[in-house]
Amino acid sequence: MKYCSTCGARVRLRIPPGDTLPRFVCEGCDTIHYQNPKMVVGCIPEWEDQILLCRRAIEPRHGLWTIPAGFMEQNETLEQAAARETMEEAKALVEISTLYAVFSLPSVSQVYVIFRGTMHTPEFGVGQESLEVRLVKQQEIPWTDLAFQVIHEVLKRYCEDSNRGQFEVHVGTVESHRIHPS
Amino acid sequence: MKYCSTCGARVRLRIPPGDTLPRFVCEGCDTIHYQNPKMVVGCIPEWEDQILLCRRAIEPRHGLWTIPAGFMEQNETLEQAAARETMEEAKALVEISTLYAVFSLPSVSQVYVIFRGTMHTPEFGVGQESLEVRLVKQQEIPWTDLAFQVIHEVLKRYCEDSNRGQFEVHVGTVESHRIHPS
Repeated sequence: MKYCSTCGARVRLRIPPGDTLPRFVCEGCDTIHYQNPKMVVGCIPEWEDQILLCRRAIEPRHGLWTIPAGFMEQNETLEQAAARETMEEAKALVEISTLYAVFSLPSVSQVYVIFRGTMHTPEFGVGQESLEVRLVKQQEIPWTDLAFQVIHEVLKRYCEDSNRGQFEVHVGTVESHRIHPS
Repeated sequence: MKYCSTCGARVRLRIPPGDTLPRFVCEGCDTIHYQNPKMVVGCIPEWEDQILLCRRAIEPRHGLWTIPAGFMEQNETLEQAAARETMEEAKALVEISTLYAVFSLPSVSQVYVIFRGTMHTPEFGVGQESLEVRLVKQQEIPWTDLAFQVIHEVLKRYCEDSNRGQFEVHVGTVESHRIHPS
């Protein structure tokens, strides 16, 4: 950030009075421009004993697999965001059922919020941001070709819970965003 | 937003190619400036059969009561944010135990993430953003003087769960951010 989005003057990184952290503060109009973590919201779409995965057509991690998830938009609920992303990336209609995982990724200032989603029919398609979309059984999950470490952690717990027949909400932290260094 | 924070040129609200929503796009350098919901993170600090509440010394809702909570900062985890806010607003050290509530507030593009926090001693103080901090029993919660509707919803469920002796994670939506119209 170099310029004030309100007045166009230069900003300078400094600690405002009464604050403890450096912020971008406008040298013209004194507006403080806070920066905050973003939420990535998605779901594990479930059809019978299968889940729906997407192969990414966009960077980062082009060509690797993930669940439908993306940045939450203004003025929507978490559940709406999860269902919207599933429709956009996998052209699948899900009924968002329960919260499944909440993971902090402090290194990239993101929080992942993942629900379970019920598909009432096995209908899906390939959204604009996907190369391929597929229903897979647990033993078919492409563990070494998953796009993000956090998705690996979420799906690992999902398989464990699924095999136990008991799902709980998982809360955790993932330090690195990538499975493979690049 | 009127100016590009990257180059200082004017921005214009338009739908970028391949997108579905209007974004602020720079007319100079084409940077797309996304806006996303913010997370408000906090905890219910617990000491024996009491919880710690703060009376707000800042707007909005100056003079009204709430639990320690505030905007999550870059590069921290949810648990760190909840503990930090509790230290800042109530000068209390908490051990963040379990996730308690995740509420969407679409009208103000916020998501509240609230944990339960254990106080190991009844020590606390009045932080810079508080007028007063107090340990209260359930029957002493100032229901008509709470600052925000979402805190009302969270504490209502907390009392119900507490009386049942069984806590679960609550997920919901609060349409209005205020208890009293102002």
